[in-house]
Amino acid sequence: MTRFAHGVSALRSSEIRDLMSLATSPDIISFSGGMPGNELFPLDKIDNIYQSLTEKEKQVAMQYGPTNGLPTLLESLSQYLEKKGLPVGKNRLMMTTGSLQAINILAKAFVDPGDTVLVETPSFIGALSAFRSYEANLVSVPLQGDGIDIEALRTTLNTAGPKPKFLYFAPNFHNPAGIIYSEEVKHQMIELLKDQDIPLIEDDVYSDLYFYEEDVPKMTNIKTMDPEGIDVCFTGSFSKILGPGLRLGWMLVPEHIYKKCELIKQSMDACSPSFSQVIADKFIRNGYIYEYTENVRQEYKKRGLAMIEALEKYLPDYVSFEKPRGGFYIWLHLPKGTDSSLILKKAIEKGVVFVTGKTFDPDGVKNDCIRVSFCNTATDVIQKGIPVVAEAIREVCG
Amino acid sequence: MTRFAHGVSALRSSEIRDLMSLATSPDIISFSGGMPGNELFPLDKIDNIYQSLTEKEKQVAMQYGPTNGLPTLLESLSQYLEKKGLPVGKNRLMMTTGSLQAINILAKAFVDPGDTVLVETPSFIGALSAFRSYEANLVSVPLQGDGIDIEALRTTLNTAGPKPKFLYFAPNFHNPAGIIYSEEVKHQMIELLKDQDIPLIEDDVYSDLYFYEEDVPKMTNIKTMDPEGIDVCFTGSFSKILGPGLRLGWMLVPEHIYKKCELIKQSMDACSPSFSQVIADKFIRNGYIYEYTENVRQEYKKRGLAMIEALEKYLPDYVSFEKPRGGFYIWLHLPKGTDSSLILKKAIEKGVVFVTGKTFDPDGVKNDCIRVSFCNTATDVIQKGIPVVAEAIREVCG
Repeated sequence: MTRFAHGVSALRSSEIRDLMSLATSPDIISFSGGMPGNELFPLDKIDNIYQSLTEKEKQVAMQYGPTNGLPTLLESLSQYLEKKGLPVGKNRLMMTTGSLQAINILAKAFVDPGDTVLVETPSFIGALSAFRSYEANLVSVPLQGDGIDIEALRTTLNTAGPKPKFLYFAPNFHNPAGIIYSEEVKHQMIELLKDQDIPLIEDDVYSDLYFYEEDVPKMTNIKTMDPEGIDVCFTGSFSKILGPGLRLGWMLVPEHIYKKCELIKQSMDACSPSFSQVIADKFIRNGYIYEYTENVRQEYKKRGLAMIEALEKYLPDYVSFEKPRGGFYIWLHLPKGTDSSLILKKAIEKGVVFVTGKTFDPDGVKNDCIRVSFCNTATDVIQKGIPVVAEAIREVCG
Repeated sequence: MTRFAHGVSALRSSEIRDLMSLATSPDIISFSGGMPGNELFPLDKIDNIYQSLTEKEKQVAMQYGPTNGLPTLLESLSQYLEKKGLPVGKNRLMMTTGSLQAINILAKAFVDPGDTVLVETPSFIGALSAFRSYEANLVSVPLQGDGIDIEALRTTLNTAGPKPKFLYFAPNFHNPAGIIYSEEVKHQMIELLKDQDIPLIEDDVYSDLYFYEEDVPKMTNIKTMDPEGIDVCFTGSFSKILGPGLRLGWMLVPEHIYKKCELIKQSMDACSPSFSQVIADKFIRNGYIYEYTENVRQEYKKRGLAMIEALEKYLPDYVSFEKPRGGFYIWLHLPKGTDSSLILKKAIEKGVVFVTGKTFDPDGVKNDCIRVSFCNTATDVIQKGIPVVAEAIREVCG
């Protein structure tokens, strides 16, 4: 009888993995993935970067680096983030092995078994897994079209019980909900959390993928607002703006939190891949990052608008959704109580996959939603696949 | 007052990091690092590999991969490990972000706060940090010239108290002790641990770096012996036989342990870097790995023998050491009770760094040893630096 740790039983295998393998089948139309389209990676730019590397740079790429990241990348990324207004100088930046590792490290820094953690419903499955793995008690607060439900958050905070260790949220082009937090909601969050000793984990990996330039000002991060009396731990990633295969993310956090996180990272994987870091550094320094995000922004907008159009055309009236203004996802609200697993089953028979709602529910129960991704599918395939999703919905919901 | 998790306080910053920054200073001779020499990386082979990649392979390199690793690398690595005799077919192989992550994942799978874990004295600092981060109670068993002290291990196992969750050990070219486990000790370990429900973590990252072909048969892993009644979790790495900057290691473990570890890995960083995996796969498939390890083996042997020679020539008689027959390290035994930090201080003044004994002591106390590494220093620099170490020892110990 193997004697595993308690925390391990809190981890469960998600539907997503099975869908991923389905999604690679050539006959299946997949709206399930959260990965960039393979055909969109900047391979020419990576070639240019590789060709330009000196022998010394290649040695650095093959060697261990400092736990917090290669100095040259920390410098170029700092400048990139400063341009967006993030208060890099007042905080510490650390490279991580994807932004999921940043979230995992923060969870490890704060969570003892049984500790309460506040999360949105729905929420990013990777973060939920990380929190569960440290045996956190997930307390969920509903998400609305303009961000977290402030009244529900207030009630939760006022309810007697152990003080939450942090609040995890994703302000821009939410996964899976697709929404942007309004400025009002962010200001209300700041008011509510000020001097409460509840840090924020602000997970912002999609904000570069906006469809409309005019949205940029209202997408200002709480980290950028730099509120007094709240420790804001900001996490980001190269996964959507360069390539997830590099496994490079980051955290930008106050010094006293950084110190703990660096020790944790040191015991997890010593440092993030130097090879990836050398490439990412050049990607910023050559200005490729601006060209590339501009290009993919246009492409994802085309796909997103095509999906909105198809959904509006084919979905029954009783299905509603917020039109995304960027990112990768659309979140479909089905009639209350619908079991979207039944719809998925029918859709798979017809050759289309997506992800069911309960995957993103902190309690693993609420299943009357569907996440459809437009990131990884060409517009003509979207036009072919969405009617199938609509048909499967009608077959189950009438 | 930030409310960190309990486990975080168990983590301490090690001397190693400061030494690492010292070690990069050009005026300092460093015997402190555990990294391959920069000049030894197979850059030409990496160039060949990169040039040979198809567009499709580059897309795979930029994309998320399965949590357990890219199928093509799992296949080529399986064949590589099978050639060494490891029972790959009877176990599951998973790629990890360095072998440290493999050790960390296993610790997370088994350790609840306060659980006992058996480790060698001295032991690999990265593993100790990982175990401490899960609040393990480290119980140390002395290491001798031929492996773990079997009588001490027997006594520890017979002592009343909670049953250890696992025993962590490194059989070949031990870090920091430099020794090889004898076949006798390994057989005695198997006898002792059979049907005890105490898994072994067998950490074997240096075994390809032997000086003498004749040693290979006696370096057979316990995993390879495949004993009945013991779960052996084998960990390995590309760090010493390709490049640590890729951050690629692996674990080969029984199916029921693998399942837990895959879920943990999924919540830690989703998958290891695909870019690195594509390169490592080609490195094996092109046969480069055999050419390369043959070359570095010769080079490390030259350095190791030069260091042995210099130590024999300059060290006072009261300092003893096992002559390494491979790997990266020599472990110097100073007179009992010596504080090697004083010696390090003097050596740094003279321009040489190494790592003090207590860094590798699970209790962080025993400091009458020194680890000198020969991996990252040319023979002429070794000949210049070792007399300085000897002088510093004499100044402190007389």
